[in-house]
Amino acid sequence: MSILRFDQTVSDWVIFAPSRAQRPHEFRGHGRDSKADLDESNGCPFCPGNEALTPPEIYAERAHQSASSAWLVRVVPNKFPALRIEEDARRHEEGNGLRSMDGCGAHEIIVESPHHGALLAEQPVEQIQRILGAAQLRWQDLMRDSRFQTVTVFKNHGAGAGTSMRHPHWQLIATPVVPRLLRVMQSVANDYFDLTGASLYRVMLQDELARGTRIAAANEHFVALLPYASHLPFETWIFPRRHQSSFAALEAGRIPPLAETLKTVLLKLLNGLDNPDFNLSIASAARGAESDQCFSWHIRITPRLTTPAGFELGSGMSINPVLPEDAAEYLQSVAV
Amino acid sequence: MSILRFDQTVSDWVIFAPSRAQRPHEFRGHGRDSKADLDESNGCPFCPGNEALTPPEIYAERAHQSASSAWLVRVVPNKFPALRIEEDARRHEEGNGLRSMDGCGAHEIIVESPHHGALLAEQPVEQIQRILGAAQLRWQDLMRDSRFQTVTVFKNHGAGAGTSMRHPHWQLIATPVVPRLLRVMQSVANDYFDLTGASLYRVMLQDELARGTRIAAANEHFVALLPYASHLPFETWIFPRRHQSSFAALEAGRIPPLAETLKTVLLKLLNGLDNPDFNLSIASAARGAESDQCFSWHIRITPRLTTPAGFELGSGMSINPVLPEDAAEYLQSVAV
Repeated sequence: MSILRFDQTVSDWVIFAPSRAQRPHEFRGHGRDSKADLDESNGCPFCPGNEALTPPEIYAERAHQSASSAWLVRVVPNKFPALRIEEDARRHEEGNGLRSMDGCGAHEIIVESPHHGALLAEQPVEQIQRILGAAQLRWQDLMRDSRFQTVTVFKNHGAGAGTSMRHPHWQLIATPVVPRLLRVMQSVANDYFDLTGASLYRVMLQDELARGTRIAAANEHFVALLPYASHLPFETWIFPRRHQSSFAALEAGRIPPLAETLKTVLLKLLNGLDNPDFNLSIASAARGAESDQCFSWHIRITPRLTTPAGFELGSGMSINPVLPEDAAEYLQSVAV
Repeated sequence: MSILRFDQTVSDWVIFAPSRAQRPHEFRGHGRDSKADLDESNGCPFCPGNEALTPPEIYAERAHQSASSAWLVRVVPNKFPALRIEEDARRHEEGNGLRSMDGCGAHEIIVESPHHGALLAEQPVEQIQRILGAAQLRWQDLMRDSRFQTVTVFKNHGAGAGTSMRHPHWQLIATPVVPRLLRVMQSVANDYFDLTGASLYRVMLQDELARGTRIAAANEHFVALLPYASHLPFETWIFPRRHQSSFAALEAGRIPPLAETLKTVLLKLLNGLDNPDFNLSIASAARGAESDQCFSWHIRITPRLTTPAGFELGSGMSINPVLPEDAAEYLQSVAV
């Protein structure tokens, strides 16, 4: 059973999910997760025909309306969830300031394609739309549970990015607390608004469009840029041109141009960096800030090209070996 | 040449060190740092006899006083520094809120032993004392430069922890800004003090000693504990029993018991987890807070047993597969 504990030293919560792991002595000799099972021979639970290997389906997009028709995108609960909907969100006090909470939340998988070896970058735009649509639908549905404060949508590609299953998939984790990083981003954006009367993200977007040197892709509705102070090489953020704080509020008509932008960025990374391991996540305003004027939702794509070491872990600061304008210039030159 | 840039979205600085890296297209096909050179055959610059391969020595501990005597611990500037003492710490404004600074700071290497394949855990306590003494001496000396706001002391062990040189060494990076994480830790400790009149770390230490379930090692002067809300499996912090906010203030007489505690923890990890990759860093109060009553300096040891994935990168929250009391119980059982 999972549990959350409050880290008093930095005012943030940590999720403990011991059921997902080995006993302590089983960490022996790893150095890396040993649960990674990238071997396709073991009956992949995400492949068509193996649906019985997953918990019951939550949602699916099918080629035709009938339930017996083949699925194109499929959402299921994670069989080894970090957090579970059955748990309670009440805090427990253990004395001397120690605070915990049972592992309340939700953890779902979006199987992004029936094809075991498909690459997201090479999917038709229509398929990427289905995935984004499913992510939004599940985000909206999970947030109907008032115990959940936000949903983190993410994807891991490649063993170096923490993937444990090769079959391409996204994940959603609903948490009963707002992660500190999101609180900081919202609070910094609020302070900026109070000071200047403008949205930090809107100013950043207009400024970067005017400069043009850190843009990876753009269309009528979305802009992909490499942030001025990006923490990781080739880190790329996709923003809506029109201010919107919550991904849940994105209009259905805007999903196609978002899918197109995402595909362009991923193809440039695939071709330009030879299929790098990467993580993708959606940053979106937490409960209560869904319609604020300050924070802007965005997709963050972070290739895993460097290994954070003792300096980064100890100080929290990043050392990035590539300036974003150099990385952007290179991505601009990559044909898609 | 390095540069620092201010990340407006989270109010923190990022170090860009392009000279340390490849051109953007050279990241092709990596997925991991390619500069890692763990091959001993290439004339290791840290081995005795190859001293001419490093920049001029800053400091050394020798078996005898004479300069020609063999060194036991040797400090040299990093040949590929993330930050350089020659640069300027003035801020530049680039318009629309973009702020940068030239790569002002310092980056040094402590070669921890003349022996290329030595493991820190297996060094005699006296040798670990020499390393800690050298780290403290360099910390104190670097902080005489009033442009530097703090020094991060760290060590990377193993490729999965970001090591690029096998020969065992520590590093120091002096930064012209206080890393946000340290500011947060100090500020949270200050708030706790204002609220309760006590030091958060002192209360934590007394509480953990009373519980006894998360203690990895202890002697008269130091305690090694696995924090209640540790972010990574087997993460272990070493605290002085007597409150002290800066590592620079540690009395010479306390270095031997610190070295003993560090050796015990590292030996337990070495034997219990089969020589895991790990990072080590020293958290110490920044300039101006060296004698505060709130923050406590400590050594953080973080084995690299899991890979942070999209959830951790996107939300900033950690998922830890092992409860610290389970990890501590296991470490308690490991003979040293």
